[in-house]
Amino acid sequence: MAVYTRLGAEEMAAIVEAFDVGALISAKGIAEGVSNSNWLIETQQAEASRRFILTVYESRTDITELPFFLDLLDHLAARGCPVPRTMHDRDGASHRLIDTPEGQKALALIEYLPGVSVSEPTVGQARAVGAALAQIHLASADFPMERANSLDLPAWQQLLGDCGHEGLASIDTGLAALVERELPTLASQWPSDLPRGVIHADLFTDNVLMLGDTVTGLIDFYFACTDMLAYDVAVTHSAWCFSNDGTRFDAALSNALIEGYESVRPLSAAERAALPVLARGAAVRFLSTRAYDWLNTPEDALVTPKDPMAFARRLEFYADPANHGIFGA
Amino acid sequence: MAVYTRLGAEEMAAIVEAFDVGALISAKGIAEGVSNSNWLIETQQAEASRRFILTVYESRTDITELPFFLDLLDHLAARGCPVPRTMHDRDGASHRLIDTPEGQKALALIEYLPGVSVSEPTVGQARAVGAALAQIHLASADFPMERANSLDLPAWQQLLGDCGHEGLASIDTGLAALVERELPTLASQWPSDLPRGVIHADLFTDNVLMLGDTVTGLIDFYFACTDMLAYDVAVTHSAWCFSNDGTRFDAALSNALIEGYESVRPLSAAERAALPVLARGAAVRFLSTRAYDWLNTPEDALVTPKDPMAFARRLEFYADPANHGIFGA
Repeated sequence: MAVYTRLGAEEMAAIVEAFDVGALISAKGIAEGVSNSNWLIETQQAEASRRFILTVYESRTDITELPFFLDLLDHLAARGCPVPRTMHDRDGASHRLIDTPEGQKALALIEYLPGVSVSEPTVGQARAVGAALAQIHLASADFPMERANSLDLPAWQQLLGDCGHEGLASIDTGLAALVERELPTLASQWPSDLPRGVIHADLFTDNVLMLGDTVTGLIDFYFACTDMLAYDVAVTHSAWCFSNDGTRFDAALSNALIEGYESVRPLSAAERAALPVLARGAAVRFLSTRAYDWLNTPEDALVTPKDPMAFARRLEFYADPANHGIFGA
Repeated sequence: MAVYTRLGAEEMAAIVEAFDVGALISAKGIAEGVSNSNWLIETQQAEASRRFILTVYESRTDITELPFFLDLLDHLAARGCPVPRTMHDRDGASHRLIDTPEGQKALALIEYLPGVSVSEPTVGQARAVGAALAQIHLASADFPMERANSLDLPAWQQLLGDCGHEGLASIDTGLAALVERELPTLASQWPSDLPRGVIHADLFTDNVLMLGDTVTGLIDFYFACTDMLAYDVAVTHSAWCFSNDGTRFDAALSNALIEGYESVRPLSAAERAALPVLARGAAVRFLSTRAYDWLNTPEDALVTPKDPMAFARRLEFYADPANHGIFGA
């Protein structure tokens, strides 16, 4: 949510020059991304104005994982998915290293896409996002790289264990009991035999650019990994079908999201049957990182931690057998 | 340096709709400006893509002063100065009010200009900035509004008095003595009879957009006020003609800046003779706010305070009679 690396205009011009994209016309640091520095860059090439996002990866990004993220964008864009392409430098590399006062950092130049992130999605928008998600699931079937999901069930157990019973109880009196009931259920019921592939794993509204009902860009693939495709449907469902605070479920958005997905990639019977438990897992995934950050963010930090209870409420909703029918028969 | 106000895509679209500038295509929060929230906005109108900066004014900006700042941009742009125009809404207003969770705030939509802010200016760039400064001084001669300089000599005395002898000494052992020597000198020698007009008063490299040696935009007029024109020359000189830390004066940049200015608006003999004391005042102006912020910024604040000593060094330089010839005979 900030620009951590300082780059003078002269350094910025030299970076852009390393890519064959024209001369630097403008560079504005943008307040996006969780932990990297980003600029909106404009260049002039022949008569055309071109735009890109320049990302400098800060310490939380493992540089050895960049080829997975950046090659994936190229793979998906080449197959017609609405994702930004990675620009390659004059030597063909998808990312470069620069020296900064804080040490060497990696950077990448990524295509700029139009569109805005909605905060109150409509049914038409939920349907379009479902379809776009299915499109990347199909298009990544022949992507040759793999990346383990670092935020899987053992990771949630670890994070929530680190929070501790008292830590969870300090967030909300009922939270420890909820977690202690859910984790064993997930451990015993978590599926292992569903179709796998590349998943986005974080498709919140912030990470979808839209114009009207059209998805113009899926962005921020830095949680993408190899896991069950239906789990990605569950993650997206938890992100799109509730009010932010998790108190209100919207059945119309839910139906539209699933319909949109199935218009491109129908769910198997096994996937559909697993969606309730996958959705509980998705809720626990965000609950676990939010609870951990809630307890471990210094009070004077730059970022306000997000409310873990927003996903505890989703978890209660998904865990209620009365709601298991929301994903269809 | 951040986006303080949250605006959803739907709110953003409604804001843009109030101006007759086409439909919202993209909005990116940008990490610019000292204390307001800014977005780079793209719209589509007929076949044309248009771009703007949307500013939401936060609590440090006095809304009653916006007409001065915003009308000034229109006045200067209409006279061919490289400043962004203010877009007016469908009712002709230069700014609008919106309701936010933190209360009502004002916003303005301002033309986007290409260009980047240099960090190591060349002689050609310093000359161009001098000329652009003189251009706004001439073009604002018939601007009908006035605004007092809230950071004038009494304000510096107040700020440095608030820092206190011990506070200043805690920044640097020699700083209190330097300030106690300079303030009486300025009080007795500060000119009062030089040509006055609208001055930018903060023309650092950050506030100048350039492409090569061409000034494409002077921006961030939120310190603009009515004061001596030659004082603005001195402020700009202190900003452009030294290394950031104030240890190295660059005579070539200094000569180019003054030459550039005089190519558009020659300095009178009285103005030239006053430049050494005006430059000492400019150095004290930035020293005073930086010293105050240095002593009053909590250690855990979002912003790192700027080093006051960078302007103490400029002050020592300007106060040295050996350097009074740098502004010409």
